[in-house]
Amino acid sequence: MSQRLRAPVVLPADPACSVVRDGVVDVDDTGRVSYCGPAATAPPAAGARVAELPGILLPGLVNAHAHSPMVLLRGMGGDLPLLRWLREVIWPAEARLRPDDVHAGMLLGAVEMLRNGVTTSAEMYFHAERMAEAVLAAGSRVVLGGPIIDLPGLDWRSMIAETERWIDVDGLVFGAGDRVELSYAAHSAYMLPVDALREIAKSASARGALVQIHVAEAPDEDERQRAEHGSVPRLLDHVGLLDGRLIAAHAVHLSDEDIALLAARGAGVAHCPGSNAKLASGIARLTDLRNASVPVGLGTDGPASNDDLDLWEEVQLAPMLARLSTQDSTAVTAADALLLATRGGAEALGRSDIGSLEPGRWADLVHVDLDDPAFATGLDVPDDQLVANLVWAAGSRRVRDVWVAGEQVVAEGEATRVDRAAAQADVRTAAARLRA
Amino acid sequence: MSQRLRAPVVLPADPACSVVRDGVVDVDDTGRVSYCGPAATAPPAAGARVAELPGILLPGLVNAHAHSPMVLLRGMGGDLPLLRWLREVIWPAEARLRPDDVHAGMLLGAVEMLRNGVTTSAEMYFHAERMAEAVLAAGSRVVLGGPIIDLPGLDWRSMIAETERWIDVDGLVFGAGDRVELSYAAHSAYMLPVDALREIAKSASARGALVQIHVAEAPDEDERQRAEHGSVPRLLDHVGLLDGRLIAAHAVHLSDEDIALLAARGAGVAHCPGSNAKLASGIARLTDLRNASVPVGLGTDGPASNDDLDLWEEVQLAPMLARLSTQDSTAVTAADALLLATRGGAEALGRSDIGSLEPGRWADLVHVDLDDPAFATGLDVPDDQLVANLVWAAGSRRVRDVWVAGEQVVAEGEATRVDRAAAQADVRTAAARLRA
Ligand SMILES: [Zn+2]
Ligand SMILES: [Zn+2]
Repeated sequence: MSQRLRAPVVLPADPACSVVRDGVVDVDDTGRVSYCGPAATAPPAAGARVAELPGILLPGLVNAHAHSPMVLLRGMGGDLPLLRWLREVIWPAEARLRPDDVHAGMLLGAVEMLRNGVTTSAEMYFHAERMAEAVLAAGSRVVLGGPIIDLPGLDWRSMIAETERWIDVDGLVFGAGDRVELSYAAHSAYMLPVDALREIAKSASARGALVQIHVAEAPDEDERQRAEHGSVPRLLDHVGLLDGRLIAAHAVHLSDEDIALLAARGAGVAHCPGSNAKLASGIARLTDLRNASVPVGLGTDGPASNDDLDLWEEVQLAPMLARLSTQDSTAVTAADALLLATRGGAEALGRSDIGSLEPGRWADLVHVDLDDPAFATGLDVPDDQLVANLVWAAGSRRVRDVWVAGEQVVAEGEATRVDRAAAQADVRTAAARLRA
Repeated sequence: MSQRLRAPVVLPADPACSVVRDGVVDVDDTGRVSYCGPAATAPPAAGARVAELPGILLPGLVNAHAHSPMVLLRGMGGDLPLLRWLREVIWPAEARLRPDDVHAGMLLGAVEMLRNGVTTSAEMYFHAERMAEAVLAAGSRVVLGGPIIDLPGLDWRSMIAETERWIDVDGLVFGAGDRVELSYAAHSAYMLPVDALREIAKSASARGALVQIHVAEAPDEDERQRAEHGSVPRLLDHVGLLDGRLIAAHAVHLSDEDIALLAARGAGVAHCPGSNAKLASGIARLTDLRNASVPVGLGTDGPASNDDLDLWEEVQLAPMLARLSTQDSTAVTAADALLLATRGGAEALGRSDIGSLEPGRWADLVHVDLDDPAFATGLDVPDDQLVANLVWAAGSRRVRDVWVAGEQVVAEGEATRVDRAAAQADVRTAAARLRA
């Protein structure tokens, strides 16, 4: 059955970040938006279930880079230097990881994101098939790949073959409402030989699949690639990875030429300001990337390091860090930041079916209510002030209801499909074993 | 009657940021802490009302720099360049400000802070006497001054005299539980002549009062002072302001000599990382200030620019920006950040009666419950992980109960003394007139 959602304010996340007063979002019986705009010009609601919502409707946020099952390791050893943290804390714990643990972590991660209004996440982690299961159980949406990485005891060829097999069996996109998109999760240029990168490019492009890859996160990580190829983006181009769909996570340390190259080849970037700040990786060149028309989304990165899956924090951090690094307090407005987290994330992932409320796109929707000092000045304020109140003062705190493909998956702040207390208890049990 | 609060975790905010398991906080009938430590070694609870709290108990946070009544102007014109924003938006609106507006703004601001676990704020704004009234109504705690500023139509001499008169009539500290401390709110070196600064120093030190002042927020604001005196801190020293109690808000652009001077003279700093980032003012030298033993607290600054009164955001931003600017991911740990917001803020304000849970200090307390994915890995984790979960993943979201001087002022997330809906409605009405 079709639905009509009506609210005093609708933010469709169109390129202008319009604010629609007394707006309506119609959802057809396939779970797609059929109308978004003023109530006054809406088509007749014949037969639709109508819900009046007292707040702001906007598209579900898109987390363009995450390792959500790492909620299992949240906050572990986080005050150590990066390499000691990985070697002494994270890798030993991950060595004990079982498929059931990953399921528990992803389930709670999906619930955490949904409650924050994040409907889609791009994920890279072990036991990806169990992650797909968890996402389908929670009712969120995912762009997913098992990591392809060159480590002792792991064989990148068989990891590529596994991704191929999965796509060939289940298809690139599957699940009710197209909830799962499979992708290639190439760890990074420094953790994979050039042959592997070339093989991934060939395999992914043959299947029209997205490649997720960490790029230029730390200043020194890619020295070898820089020496040999000039930069990681140039290496990616060289091996054919920029011929297909690609999203570069972090992309902190880029030259002007790198940015021009990404722009020319249509590669996306997942900007992770919180992770980059917390790990002292640096500040990505957000305004330069935007000026070059590189599609940019926002990512939380993994909750072991960042430490939560609240993308609204990145929505605030992206303008803050951009303003600090450009010394321009008008760089990246509140509206810009909101668009980064919605349509920007969709564009960076090469998806035209999510990220904004346009007819034909999936009805992934968030309802933010107004019962908060953040909105005390009321709705009768100029559009930019209302968006500022939402972005800078309200954030995730007032997310009350969430829909994915037209299905309500959060009601009154709680997940509808998952028993959160049970999910937390499962994570606690698994986390205790991983720590042991 | 005395009270005993018992919780699985107590963070007294002692200098080591100890984590007390199965802890107890005893509050005597004057509203002061009489014991804080393990339940096992607590004195007999004879006659005390005992409450078992299922989460984490910590001292109320101290917001070391705010202009809370600016909730009336929250988000107004925030995407404009700073000077246009002040001239075209903020100053015209403030020209319409009535005392009742300030009361309404401070009341809601106090409620917002209390619900976020912020029990004390240092405030600088017009109609300060109505702010004191609002704070006493909400039950929070304040260090307060009406601004002393040299502007056409305003006379700094009479502003100083007003502060003097108030202190001489009501005393430096008044209200149940010593809730209001009066101070001198000198706007800044660039908005006051040297004579005024000298006069403030004399008047404040004669009364043992704190001076709040904006220092070196923007790179170029203090050019005149720099040319004449070398730097703002040296000017402050020169006029005698460093002989008494002083807290410098922002203090972004300091030389090594400035930091050494503040340290030698015992001046405090209110670090406002969110405001400084959002307004592109720069990154204060937090690690250098700490290394020099300058007392540093955290401040939100005014909610017209920052845009909310959630000090937990500054608790996250302080380490993030410090790590970016020092390129050291171990700079400012989660525990360090929590101490900045509690005992650090108290020290920066020169207060030894708040900011930590020690016998004799006021029982300003926050209870954070654990019903959140942030704490899914449980309490049986190492101390540093638990503090990381609180600081990086939970923040204000799970603040459930708050006490000031032993009186419960937030219960189950809502203010006990104030009708929040009515306070929001008053702000809405006032804000509409200020916009007109
Ligand atoms: Zn990552
Ligand atoms: Zn200020």
